[in-house]
Amino acid sequence: MNGAQSLIASLVNSDVEVCFSNPGTSEMHFVAALDSVPEMRGILCLFEGVASGAADGYARMAEKPASALFHLGPGMGNAIANLHNAQKAFTPLVNIVGEHATYHRKFEAPLTSNIEGYAEPFSKWLRVSEASADVGADAADAIAASQSDIPGVATLLLPANTAWDPGGRVADKVPLAGPRTVDSQVIKDAGRRLEKANRAVMLINGSAVRERGLEAVARIREKTGATIYLSTFHARAERGAGRVNISKLPYFPDQIYAALDGCDELILVGQDRPVTFFAYPGKNSDCTPEGVEPFKLSTLADDQIGALEALADEVGAPAIDRIAEDPRSRLIVPELQTGELTPRTAGHAVAAMLPENCIIADESTTAGGASYALTANSPQHDLIALTGGAIGGGIPLAIGAAVACPDRKVVNLQADGAGMYTIQGLWTIAREQLDVTTVIWNNRAYNILNMELHNVGAANDAGPKALSMFDLSNPDIDFCALAQGMGVEAMRATTSEEFNDQFAYCMVNKGPHLIEAII
Amino acid sequence: MNGAQSLIASLVNSDVEVCFSNPGTSEMHFVAALDSVPEMRGILCLFEGVASGAADGYARMAEKPASALFHLGPGMGNAIANLHNAQKAFTPLVNIVGEHATYHRKFEAPLTSNIEGYAEPFSKWLRVSEASADVGADAADAIAASQSDIPGVATLLLPANTAWDPGGRVADKVPLAGPRTVDSQVIKDAGRRLEKANRAVMLINGSAVRERGLEAVARIREKTGATIYLSTFHARAERGAGRVNISKLPYFPDQIYAALDGCDELILVGQDRPVTFFAYPGKNSDCTPEGVEPFKLSTLADDQIGALEALADEVGAPAIDRIAEDPRSRLIVPELQTGELTPRTAGHAVAAMLPENCIIADESTTAGGASYALTANSPQHDLIALTGGAIGGGIPLAIGAAVACPDRKVVNLQADGAGMYTIQGLWTIAREQLDVTTVIWNNRAYNILNMELHNVGAANDAGPKALSMFDLSNPDIDFCALAQGMGVEAMRATTSEEFNDQFAYCMVNKGPHLIEAII
Repeated sequence: MNGAQSLIASLVNSDVEVCFSNPGTSEMHFVAALDSVPEMRGILCLFEGVASGAADGYARMAEKPASALFHLGPGMGNAIANLHNAQKAFTPLVNIVGEHATYHRKFEAPLTSNIEGYAEPFSKWLRVSEASADVGADAADAIAASQSDIPGVATLLLPANTAWDPGGRVADKVPLAGPRTVDSQVIKDAGRRLEKANRAVMLINGSAVRERGLEAVARIREKTGATIYLSTFHARAERGAGRVNISKLPYFPDQIYAALDGCDELILVGQDRPVTFFAYPGKNSDCTPEGVEPFKLSTLADDQIGALEALADEVGAPAIDRIAEDPRSRLIVPELQTGELTPRTAGHAVAAMLPENCIIADESTTAGGASYALTANSPQHDLIALTGGAIGGGIPLAIGAAVACPDRKVVNLQADGAGMYTIQGLWTIAREQLDVTTVIWNNRAYNILNMELHNVGAANDAGPKALSMFDLSNPDIDFCALAQGMGVEAMRATTSEEFNDQFAYCMVNKGPHLIEAII
Repeated sequence: MNGAQSLIASLVNSDVEVCFSNPGTSEMHFVAALDSVPEMRGILCLFEGVASGAADGYARMAEKPASALFHLGPGMGNAIANLHNAQKAFTPLVNIVGEHATYHRKFEAPLTSNIEGYAEPFSKWLRVSEASADVGADAADAIAASQSDIPGVATLLLPANTAWDPGGRVADKVPLAGPRTVDSQVIKDAGRRLEKANRAVMLINGSAVRERGLEAVARIREKTGATIYLSTFHARAERGAGRVNISKLPYFPDQIYAALDGCDELILVGQDRPVTFFAYPGKNSDCTPEGVEPFKLSTLADDQIGALEALADEVGAPAIDRIAEDPRSRLIVPELQTGELTPRTAGHAVAAMLPENCIIADESTTAGGASYALTANSPQHDLIALTGGAIGGGIPLAIGAAVACPDRKVVNLQADGAGMYTIQGLWTIAREQLDVTTVIWNNRAYNILNMELHNVGAANDAGPKALSMFDLSNPDIDFCALAQGMGVEAMRATTSEEFNDQFAYCMVNKGPHLIEAII
């Protein structure tokens, strides 16, 4: 058994059964070893950022890591943007990077680079596997690291000779510690603070954004009057009818300050202190109101749901069924719209026709407001979205979610500009015949930048050259052609009626579809 | 004047007049400042790897740097593969990366990352511009660093507030030192070595691969009998009729060993000791024959051409016109082929119809042999190709070359798999109406990996799962659809006759075209 075979066998022993791959010569023995371990599924991606984002989406839905395979430093370089997103989503991910053979690294070969240097910023764990006998154990350590404490990206560099040398040893299944229980004194302190506060705000993230966590915060809110916000960016939310709908903390600074205005107690659940996404001239980056020192109920390494349920009990909150005005969303089927197609009218169709138990992979950017609001009353579903601000995550997240959950429809709500970064992902959707409907919001612009130009106070200086940097027309991109060119059935909607019909078609037919919504 | 305006003004003062851009919010003041400096041309790319590869191609042809603009760590991450190629091409490049405002960096915002960590491996120079008053001078230092000594990538991190704060100061034009003159004693030593050797081999790179350098080595060869090889991967070659054609050192290890077999003197010109591209089981990585210690005539910081001409004189080589059998290629127009379309038949058409003074951006991978061999006898042209082994360079190099040389036809010979990494570049070709003809070699495979699987000895273990990782069919990619979807006129050739007609059409019509050659 060579090192590569021991690696793959060790991965599947610990339930890592998918490898999103973009291999090269230095990964040939890893690739060859795929056939020696039937349980491992290799999924080819035509660009590394597709593979890294897919591994992120997979783990968010499967609740266990996928592996991803990259070719030396530049291959991994292409994966960085979505590895950054995975890191910011606290996604467990086993990142395997082929490296030159140990004895080859000292030479100035064309692909020689400082891979560890590139990997260090996004990796919570990083190791070079120096001998074939170590590879299995190293893989086990990577799997454990990716899921222990605060989950994240574990990067294992696999020199070609440690892959091809004999002497590989398969590691046993990795034992995993569950999340930590929050100390009862912390729960008590949080309860006292909530009771004392004039205006308490709780900011929640991590597993607190799942059904049970949301019910616990609704109970706390009912008893204490605290205001609750979801973190603006979170890895996975459980939403829809029968679930508690909680507003996100807004994106723009003035909106954040207003949301926290007058707050004298800020309780953080799986979340750091709130800061603006970007810096803006003359605006505070730190959004915590002056004089307030936030109280951390739990980190992402802790049992969020347990902590919130304990806190609800601590403050004497009523059971969820005993709250007079039921905080759980009702099912509302919005009326389909007609006429001009806008994000608002399309949002009605999305919310009206969303099938039970689907997954939304959302990278809508500026076009997503209406569908986000309305889907709170759609049938139950999961929503996964961008966490680290690195655009190009939407299509890959949809791939990963569809691989993790083959029986669930995936709806990818996708901005046009962001979609172009990882457009190659459509090919993988077609090849794997994934049940993904991609809705492209084609507004022919980096529209968020048109807004941000004003927010940062640069609009007065900007002339035609500047504005052309946000303009995706000239030429207009034909996303139907791109999709069809990669084997995905595609259709274009220019009216609400067309969008309604097309979205209905996609919701009842399995397999890869793309709707280009001209808005 | 704010920092961003001083930056752009300082760039154009030193003849850096193009910025290949993919901006975000933190770069808004830079973008707005584009309108304040008419000499600066901003070119929008829909993916950062397109921008970095284009900046590389531009500098290779313009012989001065372009700038490239990226959005924080993840944006620059997407640029790394082609920045790696630029570094390995010794291309001067001014890499500007927007960073959070200085006071914002300490917060855990979604896009916060260790940008310096990501930039260090490929940057020969790296600095954070900490105040608006410094930005102009920092830009000047970056420009100087990119071109001094051995040229390379200079990375300037521009925090948002140093861009928007007033107090910017424009730097004067940067004085540049030319390449260093090689010491006459080194020339004498090299001459003596050549005379003493039984079998001398010279391996040449850098500007030695340009017309005058090639003539000098042909003179040296004529006099001393030395064998000459171009470096397997070089940034820019001058080729075609009337120029000396020299073979490249081969790619695969056994071929390299054979090429250097029996050599007792190895002289390196702008080149490190020869090593294999990858490591292969049981093969030497270092290809220098045992007992031979290579002699370095010059580094890339030196005046290669001056050194070679001095060495030719030192050994008493005849003038190029006095060599009995003229080493310069004759013009040969190969006969157009008919029937089945293959890389060989298509190569005949390329070589036969290549216009005078065009530029070939070559990322043919396995399909390029025939056209490379035959174009040695085409009209004079430049050839730019991959240097660092990071695939996805071809389309971007073509963009950069076309921007640098608007009056010259650019022919991009492009492998299908490699083309998919930066396929978004076609949109920039269409938007800028660049005179680029992209020939896609569509063989529906990562064909090089089919070969390498055997070379590394992994073929016996590989079954259907492994082989599917090199297979780009299922679904076949329709490159005509992709091109048309991004505004590029496209045509498909399935026979030699079709290819001949289509290539002829593209050579006489200016503007963006793509031929999908089904081979």
